[in-house]
Amino acid sequence: MTTIFKNLVDVLHMVVFRVVRVDLSTQKITEEVYKEDLVRRFLGGRGLASYLALKEIPRGIDPYSPSNKLYIFAGPLSGLATLATSRITVVTKSPLTGSLTHTNAGGNFAYMLRKAGYEGIIVEGKAEEPVYILIKEGEVSIRPAKHIWGKWTGAATKALLEDAGFEGDERKAGVATIGPAGENLSRIAGIRFSDYERFAGRGGAGAVMGSKRLKGIVVWGTRDLYSLVVDRRRWIEESGKLAQRLANAGTSKALHTYGTNLLMNIINAVGGLPTRNFETGYFEEAEKISGEHIKQNYVAEVHGCAQCPIACTQMVEVKSGPYKFIGKAKYEYESTWSLGANLGNGNPEAVLKLIKLANELGFDTISLGNTLATAIELAKKGKLNIPLEWGDPAPLIDLVYKMAYRDGIGDDLAEGDYRLAMKYGEPEAFVGSRGQGFPAYDPRALKGFALSYVTANRGGDHLEAYSPTWEVLGVPEKVDPLCESPECIKKQVKLVVYAQHLMALSDSVTFCKFDTLDKDGLFERDLAHLFNVGFGWDVTPEELLTIGERIFNVERLFHVKEGRWVKDELPPRLRKEIPTGPAKGHSAVKMFEEGIKEYYAARGWVDGKPTYETLRRLGLEEFQHLL
Amino acid sequence: MTTIFKNLVDVLHMVVFRVVRVDLSTQKITEEVYKEDLVRRFLGGRGLASYLALKEIPRGIDPYSPSNKLYIFAGPLSGLATLATSRITVVTKSPLTGSLTHTNAGGNFAYMLRKAGYEGIIVEGKAEEPVYILIKEGEVSIRPAKHIWGKWTGAATKALLEDAGFEGDERKAGVATIGPAGENLSRIAGIRFSDYERFAGRGGAGAVMGSKRLKGIVVWGTRDLYSLVVDRRRWIEESGKLAQRLANAGTSKALHTYGTNLLMNIINAVGGLPTRNFETGYFEEAEKISGEHIKQNYVAEVHGCAQCPIACTQMVEVKSGPYKFIGKAKYEYESTWSLGANLGNGNPEAVLKLIKLANELGFDTISLGNTLATAIELAKKGKLNIPLEWGDPAPLIDLVYKMAYRDGIGDDLAEGDYRLAMKYGEPEAFVGSRGQGFPAYDPRALKGFALSYVTANRGGDHLEAYSPTWEVLGVPEKVDPLCESPECIKKQVKLVVYAQHLMALSDSVTFCKFDTLDKDGLFERDLAHLFNVGFGWDVTPEELLTIGERIFNVERLFHVKEGRWVKDELPPRLRKEIPTGPAKGHSAVKMFEEGIKEYYAARGWVDGKPTYETLRRLGLEEFQHLL
Repeated sequence: MTTIFKNLVDVLHMVVFRVVRVDLSTQKITEEVYKEDLVRRFLGGRGLASYLALKEIPRGIDPYSPSNKLYIFAGPLSGLATLATSRITVVTKSPLTGSLTHTNAGGNFAYMLRKAGYEGIIVEGKAEEPVYILIKEGEVSIRPAKHIWGKWTGAATKALLEDAGFEGDERKAGVATIGPAGENLSRIAGIRFSDYERFAGRGGAGAVMGSKRLKGIVVWGTRDLYSLVVDRRRWIEESGKLAQRLANAGTSKALHTYGTNLLMNIINAVGGLPTRNFETGYFEEAEKISGEHIKQNYVAEVHGCAQCPIACTQMVEVKSGPYKFIGKAKYEYESTWSLGANLGNGNPEAVLKLIKLANELGFDTISLGNTLATAIELAKKGKLNIPLEWGDPAPLIDLVYKMAYRDGIGDDLAEGDYRLAMKYGEPEAFVGSRGQGFPAYDPRALKGFALSYVTANRGGDHLEAYSPTWEVLGVPEKVDPLCESPECIKKQVKLVVYAQHLMALSDSVTFCKFDTLDKDGLFERDLAHLFNVGFGWDVTPEELLTIGERIFNVERLFHVKEGRWVKDELPPRLRKEIPTGPAKGHSAVKMFEEGIKEYYAARGWVDGKPTYETLRRLGLEEFQHLL
Repeated sequence: MTTIFKNLVDVLHMVVFRVVRVDLSTQKITEEVYKEDLVRRFLGGRGLASYLALKEIPRGIDPYSPSNKLYIFAGPLSGLATLATSRITVVTKSPLTGSLTHTNAGGNFAYMLRKAGYEGIIVEGKAEEPVYILIKEGEVSIRPAKHIWGKWTGAATKALLEDAGFEGDERKAGVATIGPAGENLSRIAGIRFSDYERFAGRGGAGAVMGSKRLKGIVVWGTRDLYSLVVDRRRWIEESGKLAQRLANAGTSKALHTYGTNLLMNIINAVGGLPTRNFETGYFEEAEKISGEHIKQNYVAEVHGCAQCPIACTQMVEVKSGPYKFIGKAKYEYESTWSLGANLGNGNPEAVLKLIKLANELGFDTISLGNTLATAIELAKKGKLNIPLEWGDPAPLIDLVYKMAYRDGIGDDLAEGDYRLAMKYGEPEAFVGSRGQGFPAYDPRALKGFALSYVTANRGGDHLEAYSPTWEVLGVPEKVDPLCESPECIKKQVKLVVYAQHLMALSDSVTFCKFDTLDKDGLFERDLAHLFNVGFGWDVTPEELLTIGERIFNVERLFHVKEGRWVKDELPPRLRKEIPTGPAKGHSAVKMFEEGIKEYYAARGWVDGKPTYETLRRLGLEEFQHLL
């Protein structure tokens, strides 16, 4: 595409999606522009990427084969307003689940990618020697990275930026990179994005990068993003009003003060804090690893993603004692749970140290904690011959290093919790769905998750429908997290389905989930308003939710195509009652068994699979051959 | 060589030295037999290897080039008696010092190598993909090791043994291997030898293996070693008498009970325990890391090398707390000093944890501690931007991992203390000679070391002449370690020169240094007796010491040939007075300045270089062109 046409597209305010496709086998670099009609069906991010993945990734391939593809996509709103819109989404065939995954991160990458001239990058093939991709003002090149291969994510980020001419400063350009975990093909390796240790963690996308010998991506440019809207002045005014509202929302202020880990005490108080590999839902030592305690003792800096009015990023440091580490670490609730409560570990310094390690070596913190929890359970059952104990974090530090370099028993752990539990004959020691471990909420105490975890397309996921929004925060309405009446189950199903569509939408726009936690947050009505003001569309909130539903079905079709994980299943451990704490005696069985029938009915699915009628309703007839 | 000739050599009791030469570039494997006349000039081990290295290694080559060679040599007495005779010596051009190094280890390797049919292995060239060498009953093969490359030394040892058919049990065969430190060419990487975590640590020989893509060597065989002596019955009787004497020596018993770390309190008591990178010679917390304290709290098993009557190997474990580690670790005084006192670290669990890490990742513990000490000093001077403190071991754990994988600042540290100090413009922060850091004795308080450290051919070394033998143990006579009178300096020079010859002899035989610590130990008279009884020789003790001198001069000639490190120099820090402790006010200047003149005179050297007359006296005229 010539520069003249590029500019013309901008001037005409056509909402197109510009992608650069990089084949690392042939070193061929091509530009593709997806036109407005496709954008109006799938937006960008997770939606458009999943659609392309369903069409392009051959059935049955090994996720590590050169035929696998990595879609690294921003969305039509990314970086375009002072809202929480700077998420970058990665879609690929996951080495962890063996089917489609999507995973996203904040920071400055999506913003810088768009300013560099592209909405998305598709990487395919496999380089002969380590490389990185540089996109600088629309110019794309594949550059040698042999001298950077092997570096941990912090040093790699710096080295990539230096090599690309940005003096090693990750505030100056967008960077994606992997650490040794990804290089050594750990199935739970994530991708680190600038700035401040952000991760597209789940599903092993970091290992897909590793398998392609792609150490990183650097993006930078100066495109004026406001040239993409029809009326710059009105856009700034209208998006500014929403930004004001979002900034003043209660949840925004709380997130800015404490970060996501303000949830630790809250979730423990309702008895839904998974403890010791989901043995129970209450952790006696939660207070010590809570957001409040860590804020007071370890938080050194607070930052935000590009153009975000919330700014929830909490950077911690541990400056003395045996778990002291050099530098600062970004930390979140999920990480603190997975490497704290779920390991019976109430030592905040040990938790933060493990998080720092995960960030540096390039692991998904959630799956890392899941895997260590599985390992401890196996050790205690005498299946693994290593002396591990709940609440004893010291030997875990070495284990994490061993995982990153696949040394000894670390080789088994690097395969993730699901394969570890199966290999040693203890399927119950894996607590998750579609091969991916569950996050920081016990679905026996927060029962919306009994549906949303198991139906999540990427497996073991809390972000495809975040039920504490209604169960804890009362948005859009308060639902008792423990109730199991037929009416309540109906209500949960309705809310889960709605949330799955809203989240698919957010991830495709791209919006941060924290836009949607508060009654004063941003929902489909606000998104419709933004699209209509920004791009001159005439979209309704309902149409947007249908886009969300279309995306969710596309993802499910990937499982159907692969013949893998189509059915939604509750893991055995959650069929037991919670033995202690505020939710004592509760299980997830009823909500799941009865809810899943309602859920399939609400979706127009049979046994986890869309019907032809459903595909037709959503304009997905082109995929009918997969049924 | 055919089997018939092999047997004939055995039957005739010819003392030959059988070597297999393996070229990893061409995969050519050849046998060489060095005849009795050469063995009578250089014995084996360090002596014969250094002679061959001087002749064979081209001048000026990069130690990592395929032209560098690794000599892995046993000696004529290795494994042949129930004495401490099972040392294996490695000689190569050192990536740390840039000149010749020799380094040796105990265990079962030398014994198994001889039983496999060889006294030595020479490795040259460079493999295309990782390999290991297998020697099984005289059959030598080069085998793929791509699946073992990357493993830490413990898992690698096991994997090599499994691959070779020994069920992963290092008591069944001899194994040499490197860890990530060697693979990633850290200049302070060692070679681990079976069994029980033994290391040929110093000089970076592990990195030379790494540069050749040689992950390991496995040796096993059943040759009857007694067939090598002229009279089996008399040999067993005579060597048995010496073994009895050695076993009953006071030092043997103490070493068996406490291991080498019984020295911690002793050396501290004389004010010679280098503390905080040789800032002073007295460590307030020495008791906590002493052999006595560690024996009581952390020693789990005691082992010995093949056929050793001393059995000094102390295996420790740390079973709880933040420095808990999985498995057991072999530990020594030098390691405990370097990762303890020299870092101001009085936490025994942290010390043992660092030792375990070094063993697993494949570092020389002494140089690792030297390098960390240099790093702390640079950090405290504001030259390195990382928060390191004396006595704060926590961040060092990560640093060691970073060194093994050359991540971030670890890349600089992996180069070793000398290059680290030079790069950051603080030459005084390196305390050593010939580019290698000094070990666990302060030459300002144990002044024999003011001569023996600096004149040691391999650099920064305590094992080419161990002056505490006379200064602390009074063998062969007691010398005040602090005295500086002209008579005392003369005595020190005499003893250092004698010890350098005796040690060169020991390392070539191969004998353990612990044979020579006690008045009831084994000295040149006993060695002569063993040779004469065993091989029908008529060698005198004096002739043996001359062999030691010949070897010592050959090593010095390597420096002369390279034009590197010929002159002996005292590092700047040791010119200052010790500021605290029992040796307060003492420096090493006088002993060095006056002693070195005497020393050169005693050797027949000028400015660190042998004269032609000296070469002729020692039968080394063939090297006169180097002068």
